[in-house]
Amino acid sequence: MAIATLEPAVDQAALVEFLLRIGDNTLILGHRVSEWCGRGPALEEDIALANTALDLIGQTQLWLALAGEVEGKGRSADDLAYLRDGFEFRNILLVERPNGDFGKTLMRQFLFDAWHYLLLRALKGSADPRIAEIAEKAFKEVSYHLDRSRDLIIRLGDGTAESHRRMQEALDELWPFTGEMFVGDAVDATLTQAGVTPEPQSLKAGWDEIISDALAEATLKRPTDGYMHKGDRRGVHTEHLGYLLAEMQFLQRAYPGATW
Amino acid sequence: MAIATLEPAVDQAALVEFLLRIGDNTLILGHRVSEWCGRGPALEEDIALANTALDLIGQTQLWLALAGEVEGKGRSADDLAYLRDGFEFRNILLVERPNGDFGKTLMRQFLFDAWHYLLLRALKGSADPRIAEIAEKAFKEVSYHLDRSRDLIIRLGDGTAESHRRMQEALDELWPFTGEMFVGDAVDATLTQAGVTPEPQSLKAGWDEIISDALAEATLKRPTDGYMHKGDRRGVHTEHLGYLLAEMQFLQRAYPGATW
Repeated sequence: MAIATLEPAVDQAALVEFLLRIGDNTLILGHRVSEWCGRGPALEEDIALANTALDLIGQTQLWLALAGEVEGKGRSADDLAYLRDGFEFRNILLVERPNGDFGKTLMRQFLFDAWHYLLLRALKGSADPRIAEIAEKAFKEVSYHLDRSRDLIIRLGDGTAESHRRMQEALDELWPFTGEMFVGDAVDATLTQAGVTPEPQSLKAGWDEIISDALAEATLKRPTDGYMHKGDRRGVHTEHLGYLLAEMQFLQRAYPGATW
Repeated sequence: MAIATLEPAVDQAALVEFLLRIGDNTLILGHRVSEWCGRGPALEEDIALANTALDLIGQTQLWLALAGEVEGKGRSADDLAYLRDGFEFRNILLVERPNGDFGKTLMRQFLFDAWHYLLLRALKGSADPRIAEIAEKAFKEVSYHLDRSRDLIIRLGDGTAESHRRMQEALDELWPFTGEMFVGDAVDATLTQAGVTPEPQSLKAGWDEIISDALAEATLKRPTDGYMHKGDRRGVHTEHLGYLLAEMQFLQRAYPGATW
C-alpha cells in the first residue's frame, strides 16, 4: 500500500477525455472512409479503403470501450459512438472534412496517418498498460496505413498534370486543419506529467519530417502555416459533423437498443 | 339513422393511406426544397424557394394531422413526420430525388406542381369536407407554385445553350419518375367510389396538356414514355430517402419529445 501511493494518481476525468479524443478521431475518420465503400476508383482501392475503415472502427471499439470503463457510468463503446450529440465529440476537424475526390481523401488520410503513427508509437510506452496494449495493436495497422497513403500521394502528386493540380488543391485546403493536432491543453499536461501520453507538441518535428519528405517526392509545395482551425477541445465542429452523425447514428436513434 | 346508412361508409384505413400519400409528398418535397435555403443562385430565388418549402410543410401539417386523427391512435403530424422509418413513407419517388442544380430542382417542381395542382383542384370537390377544406387552401398556394415553376422552366429551357442543355438533361432524368403519379390501386378505387378522391388516371390528360404546352414554349423535347419507376405504394424507396430522413428526423430521434 505504501508503494502504491508513491505513484501519482492519474486524473480519471482527463484520461476519459483523452480516450474520447483518440477514439472519436478513429470513429469519425473510419466512418468517412467507409463512405467510399463500393465507390472506389478501382476494385483494389475500394477494398483498401474499406480495410482502412475497418481498422479504424476496430480501434475505436477498443478506445471507446476503455473510455466507458474508466468513466464508470456503464456506457459502452456503442453508447458513446451512437448516443452522443455533436458538441460531445472530441475529434479534430480534419477527420470530419468531406471526402471530396479520391485524391483529397488520400491527402486527408496521409496528413492524419503521419500524426497517428507518431502518436501510437509514443503511446506504446504509456504508463497505463491498457493504453500501451491498444497502441501496440493499432500501431501495426497504422504503419501500413501510412505506407499506403504516403505511396499514393506521391504517385498522384508526381503523376499527370491534373492529378498534380488536384493533390496540391487538396493539400492547400486541408493544411489549415493540421495545426490542431499539436495543440496541448490542461488534459494533455496532466497526462503527460503522469507518463500516460506524449506532449502533443513533441510529435511536431517528426510529423514535419515525414510530411516534407513525402511532399518533396510528390513534387507538391508545402503550404505555409497560417491560420489554423481549432475545435475539438471545446466540442466545436463544422457543419459536416452533424450530417455525418445523423447518418451514422440513425439506426440506434430510431431503434434504441436494437441488436442483431 | 336510416338516412346515414344510405351513405356508403368510407374505408378508414384507405383514407389514412391516401392522407399519408399526399402528406408525405408535401413533406419530402418541402424538405428537399428547404435544403436550398441560403444557397439559392439569387436572393429572390432563394426566398421564393424557401416560401415554396414553407407552403409545402404547412400543407403537410394539415394532411398528416388529419391522417393521425382518422387513424385514431393518437399520433400527431409530428409523430408521423419524425417517427416513421423509410418503409412507412408513401411519397412518390420523384419528390425524394436529390436537388441537383437549380434547373433540376425547378424541373422536378414543375412536373410535380402540374400534377399537384390538378389533384388539389379535384379534391376541392371531395365528399369529405375536411379534405375539401385543406385542398381549397392548398390549391391557392399551389396555383402560384405552378405559375412560377412553369415560368422558370420556360425561361431556362429557352435560355442560353447551357441552360437549355441542363434543362433537357433534368427532364430526361426525371421523366421516368412521373408515371407513378397516375397509377391507381385498391385504395384509390375505394376512395374514388366514395367520391373522396379522383381516380389517379383521370388527371393524366390535363397533366399532359400542361406539360406539353410548357415544354413546347421552353423548346424542350418531351421524352417518350418508357420504363417508369414505382415505389410509393409499397413503401419501397431509393437510397436518397434514407439520408433525407436521417437528417430530417435527427432532432426528434436524438431528443425524443423535445419541444420549444
